[in-house]
Amino acid sequence: MSVSSYPIVRLRPKAEARAIRHGFPWVYGDELVTDRRTQGLEPGALAILEDAERRTLGLVTVNTRSRIIARMIDRDPEAVIDQAWFELRLKRALDLRERLYADPFYRLVHAEADGLPGVVIDRFGDVAVVQPNAAWAEIHLEALVAALVAVTGVSAVVKNGSGRSRGLEGLAEETLILRGEVTGPVPVKMNGAVYMADLIGGQKTGLFYDQRPNHAFAASLARGQKVLDVFSHVGGFGLAALAGGATSALSVDGSAAALELARKGAEAMGASDRYATRQGDAFATLEALAAEGEQFGVVICDPPAFAPAKPALEAGLRAYERVARLAAPLVAPGGILVLCSCSHAADLSAFRNASARGIGRGGRRSQVLYTGFAGPDHPVLPQLAEGGYLKALAFRLDG
Amino acid sequence: MSVSSYPIVRLRPKAEARAIRHGFPWVYGDELVTDRRTQGLEPGALAILEDAERRTLGLVTVNTRSRIIARMIDRDPEAVIDQAWFELRLKRALDLRERLYADPFYRLVHAEADGLPGVVIDRFGDVAVVQPNAAWAEIHLEALVAALVAVTGVSAVVKNGSGRSRGLEGLAEETLILRGEVTGPVPVKMNGAVYMADLIGGQKTGLFYDQRPNHAFAASLARGQKVLDVFSHVGGFGLAALAGGATSALSVDGSAAALELARKGAEAMGASDRYATRQGDAFATLEALAAEGEQFGVVICDPPAFAPAKPALEAGLRAYERVARLAAPLVAPGGILVLCSCSHAADLSAFRNASARGIGRGGRRSQVLYTGFAGPDHPVLPQLAEGGYLKALAFRLDG
Repeated sequence: MSVSSYPIVRLRPKAEARAIRHGFPWVYGDELVTDRRTQGLEPGALAILEDAERRTLGLVTVNTRSRIIARMIDRDPEAVIDQAWFELRLKRALDLRERLYADPFYRLVHAEADGLPGVVIDRFGDVAVVQPNAAWAEIHLEALVAALVAVTGVSAVVKNGSGRSRGLEGLAEETLILRGEVTGPVPVKMNGAVYMADLIGGQKTGLFYDQRPNHAFAASLARGQKVLDVFSHVGGFGLAALAGGATSALSVDGSAAALELARKGAEAMGASDRYATRQGDAFATLEALAAEGEQFGVVICDPPAFAPAKPALEAGLRAYERVARLAAPLVAPGGILVLCSCSHAADLSAFRNASARGIGRGGRRSQVLYTGFAGPDHPVLPQLAEGGYLKALAFRLDG
Repeated sequence: MSVSSYPIVRLRPKAEARAIRHGFPWVYGDELVTDRRTQGLEPGALAILEDAERRTLGLVTVNTRSRIIARMIDRDPEAVIDQAWFELRLKRALDLRERLYADPFYRLVHAEADGLPGVVIDRFGDVAVVQPNAAWAEIHLEALVAALVAVTGVSAVVKNGSGRSRGLEGLAEETLILRGEVTGPVPVKMNGAVYMADLIGGQKTGLFYDQRPNHAFAASLARGQKVLDVFSHVGGFGLAALAGGATSALSVDGSAAALELARKGAEAMGASDRYATRQGDAFATLEALAAEGEQFGVVICDPPAFAPAKPALEAGLRAYERVARLAAPLVAPGGILVLCSCSHAADLSAFRNASARGIGRGGRRSQVLYTGFAGPDHPVLPQLAEGGYLKALAFRLDG
């Protein structure tokens, strides 16, 4: 595509061009002049963004169906978005991950911060899973995937189009294998543990890398302890605790498929004899364990997002408080309670207050030992850093 | 002291007894009835706190000279503050640190969260340094020190009475050896590095444990890199980077004594050939290094508190921005910039914004990789967690 063929879109006079000039990557719907020409752009079309005084700000992708109507793609308005362009961004992303981790298991691309708005790529050794969660990435997917194979040498590429954000961009759900083959779950090494990731079964049975530092912190306190891992998914905290020397770990989850993968992970670690799983509703299981008089040296609760967006905040915070209240009695004297939230809407302070209140109502006093976020393979632009979605708090409960 | 001998102090009707009942440990001056009897209490005296309806809240220590007029000592109003009482609290504190660390180098007591309001104890192997920063602790120091020796088995105890908080409590400055002997700097193992801590030279040449996880994160990115450590003190980040495999590290500080200890640490690590120091004003040195065209794979700036309290906030944030602006050009393409703040008054968001602005003004774009706080041997009460003073941010700069 030749440079002159990019259409031009323009900020309204009231829009904050300064923030964009200083690195803010998004334009909201009410900040852009949406005349008929702009309205007529295909979702994901490239365009040159100008401020109200017609000064060029850079190359953006436009999607009039999205609340984020334009996303900055390149500060250079003459950039050509082809395989070579993708290779440059992927090399920069790969360079960071190779500095961070000895093994090729990580989030390779974390959207805006890695210069690929709306694009998420997770790497599982020889397999990469691409989430093209913005319309522009769907259009350029072939060049992106070719670049991905060239830069990383992965032999298989999966397209995972199942995320909530695709709906906001007007994209359909679709998961398929774009390159190579994926047969059965992939073993993933992290913090000394082995996780089995079912990459084509979708989100419920895949794997999340974001909790890596928080797994590591909890595992560092697990040596010689009995560990309970509630909302365990494929065993994130539980298997890390076993790798850290826990005498036993019990994972609780509602999904039989996730627990089956967790058990396979423990098997691959040679730790099956220290591992147990229990399928069921997390709240009911917490109550049942208390009724059974069970206590653990370390208890972790990593529930799904109870407050994904503002309207759910109040109910979400009550749910976090309830988790804390039900978990606190299960923590042995002087033991550790790790509570996590992946809710965008609940900020750190609100989440910590709800957790501390729940612990108090569960009859315990506590110290806060640790506050953790998503790992460094999940970088964020400083301009978007405020709402870090993932928080992990480690409390020590009284004796 | 028999129970009945404790005087009674009482909250004013408007005071928030509920917060105290739920774990908030402080009473401010305007919340307490300060009649002549209360005014007459010796600073640090023990008293039973009641709410306005004369219901008992617990045992507090009172200091009418302090803004925090009463601190909760024990929820049990009949508690007797003797060696056995201190031993219980110290054992609980020690139990946590022994779970956290293989070697006996840590903050053993972090004031309120460890149940000893205003008391800080750092352990350096066989030596403990006690900071009795509240009047009650000064009064009970002998019982505290006896308990400390009994519980930990340390052979030497230093009293460090040089902190700013002692002034707020009306306590005089005083540093002396209470037990055993301390001859010369003590070697301290942390993150694979060796630090030389001069425990009787005072704050300028002692050692801070709070940065341990942030040292570790920076060190994990230092392998094969040239590292610059500005405001280095005794080499905190620089020596950790050497332990992490940095090809070279340069520490910059204004204190010749601190740099001398840093060099001794590098020597003890057998890493002197990879280590250099430069004494001078940090800002001037950052400018000089830029003029010399130097660049580093990892740059760390860990300045003193530029905004210790509210009135200094504006000027403090400008100073943090200036540090970031001067440091950014020294970071190699794709390299890492770690910026720290130990300012109570600058919250995470304000500090991050100042840092990002400075990096931008230094001509670079950035991602935020990591947000860290003080390590888990610095626990906080959830009710006091809002103002975590120490923040470390790791940015990756553009290529």
